[in-house]
Amino acid sequence: MELDIDEPRIAARLEQFLSRKLKDTGFSGYVIGLSGGIDSSLSAAVAVRAVGRDALRGFILPHSRSHKDSEKDALDLAVQLEIKTERIDISPMIDAYYGDIDSVNPLRSGNKMARERMSILFDKASQYNCLVLGTSNRTEICLGYGTWYGDVACSVDPLGMLYKTQVRQLARHYQLPDSIISKAPTADLWPGQTDEGELGLSYEEVDRLLFLLIERQIRDRLALKAAGFDDRIIDRTMSLLNKSYFKRNLPEVADIGMRPIPNNITLL
Amino acid sequence: MELDIDEPRIAARLEQFLSRKLKDTGFSGYVIGLSGGIDSSLSAAVAVRAVGRDALRGFILPHSRSHKDSEKDALDLAVQLEIKTERIDISPMIDAYYGDIDSVNPLRSGNKMARERMSILFDKASQYNCLVLGTSNRTEICLGYGTWYGDVACSVDPLGMLYKTQVRQLARHYQLPDSIISKAPTADLWPGQTDEGELGLSYEEVDRLLFLLIERQIRDRLALKAAGFDDRIIDRTMSLLNKSYFKRNLPEVADIGMRPIPNNITLL
Repeated sequence: MELDIDEPRIAARLEQFLSRKLKDTGFSGYVIGLSGGIDSSLSAAVAVRAVGRDALRGFILPHSRSHKDSEKDALDLAVQLEIKTERIDISPMIDAYYGDIDSVNPLRSGNKMARERMSILFDKASQYNCLVLGTSNRTEICLGYGTWYGDVACSVDPLGMLYKTQVRQLARHYQLPDSIISKAPTADLWPGQTDEGELGLSYEEVDRLLFLLIERQIRDRLALKAAGFDDRIIDRTMSLLNKSYFKRNLPEVADIGMRPIPNNITLL
Repeated sequence: MELDIDEPRIAARLEQFLSRKLKDTGFSGYVIGLSGGIDSSLSAAVAVRAVGRDALRGFILPHSRSHKDSEKDALDLAVQLEIKTERIDISPMIDAYYGDIDSVNPLRSGNKMARERMSILFDKASQYNCLVLGTSNRTEICLGYGTWYGDVACSVDPLGMLYKTQVRQLARHYQLPDSIISKAPTADLWPGQTDEGELGLSYEEVDRLLFLLIERQIRDRLALKAAGFDDRIIDRTMSLLNKSYFKRNLPEVADIGMRPIPNNITLL
C-alpha cells in the first residue's frame, strides 16, 4: 500500500533533522510533553536516538481529570528510554482559572489545558536552554485535530509529515511498548473519548483518503468513490480539511502593500 | 518622510479587513486583551469603527506585579470607546505555577504571562463565538520583540503591517487618549522597563532603518551609514531581525518529501 514507509530510511531522516537542528541553533537539548500516547512516545524515541537520552527531558503534565493510564504509559516509556522526567500537575493553574471546571464545555477546558501544557514546556525549555519538541502528526494537522497555539505549537516537529498510520508503523520499528501502540488514540477530553469517535473517521480510512487527495492530488469524487470511499467519509474529511486551514497558517495580517519580511538579511 | 502613512486610507483598509473577516467566517465579534498600551488601544479603536462597539469585548488581564497605570489607561480607553470589559487577574494561575515568582527570571515569567493571556483570550473567544484580535505591530514582528505563541498569537492582526511610528501616527488619527499615545512603550516585565531601553534602539530610528532594509531593500552598509545609521544600530537591528526569524514562521517540520497541504480543496 502506498502509505507504507521505508522505516530505516525515514527514521534516519527524522534523527538527522533533530540532531542538525540542535547543532544549528546551539541549544542543549529538547523538552517534550509525554501524554502516554503514540505520537509523543515516538517523538521522544526519535529524539533519544538522534541526540542521546541526556539531551531529552520528558514532562508529564496531567490534570486531575486526566485518565490515570495515560500517566502510567508515559512513565513506562520514560523508563524504557531511560530519560529524566518531571511531573507537573496542571490542575492548580486550570482550576484557578475556571473555578468550577465541571460547568465548562470540555472542548474549551481541553483547549485551555493544551495551551497550559505548551506554556509550561516553553518555560521549561527556557530554563534548560532547550527547544520544545513537537508531537503533531500529518493526519491531525490535515484535519485540524489539535489546539491552535496549544499541542500544535512547538519549536520543531519531527512527525508533522507522517500520517497517523505511518506513525504506528514507525512506532513498531522503534519498538515502543505494545500498550502504547495498540491503545485507541484519545485527546483525553472526557472519559471514553477517542479521536476516531470524535472525528467520525477511522485513521486507516482517512489516511488513505488524505493520501489520495494530497499526495496523489486526486480531485475527482468518482475516482475517490471507485477507490472505496463513500460520500459521508469524503464529505467529512473535506469539511475538516478545509475548515482547519487557519491552524496551518500564521495569523492573517491586514495587507497594506508592504513587502514580506525576509528570514535572513545579509549586508554587503 | 517615507514612513508617513495616509491615515484615512490606511484606516479604511484596516477597518475593511476586520469587517470582511467577520462576514467571511461567521463569528459574532472580536475579543482583545487591553494592556493600556498604544497597540492594543489602536487595534480596539479600529475594530470599534469596523464592526461596532457591541461586537468587541475588551479583557484587562493584570498580574499583581503589573504597573497599576496600565490598568487605568486600559479602562479609560474602554470608556472612550464605550466597549464592555472584563477584568481577570492572572496572578492565581501564574503564581500557582511558579510558587515563588520572585525567584524566576522576569523574561521567563513575562513569557508565561503573555501565554496565559493568549490562552484566556482564546477561551473567551470560544465562549462568545468570537475571534481573537491581535495587537502586534510590524516593528515588534521584525525584531522578534514579543512572545511566540503569546501576545503574537491571535486570529487576525490588523496592525501587523504598521511600524511602531506608524501606529503612533494612526493613533492620533483615531484620537486615542494622549496619556496612551505619549507614554513610553513597555512590556511591563519589571518596574521602569521600556521597550526602547531593552531593545537598545529608539523606535524612531529603528523604524527608519527597517524601512530601508525591508521596504527599500537596501543591503549596502555604506548606504545605510550615509543615511545616518551607525554600526552599532545597524548590527543590533540585523541581529534581532535575523535571530527572530522563527517567530515569524510555523514550527519547522522534518521534510520527508511530502506535498504541502493545500488551504482549500475543491472536488470535481
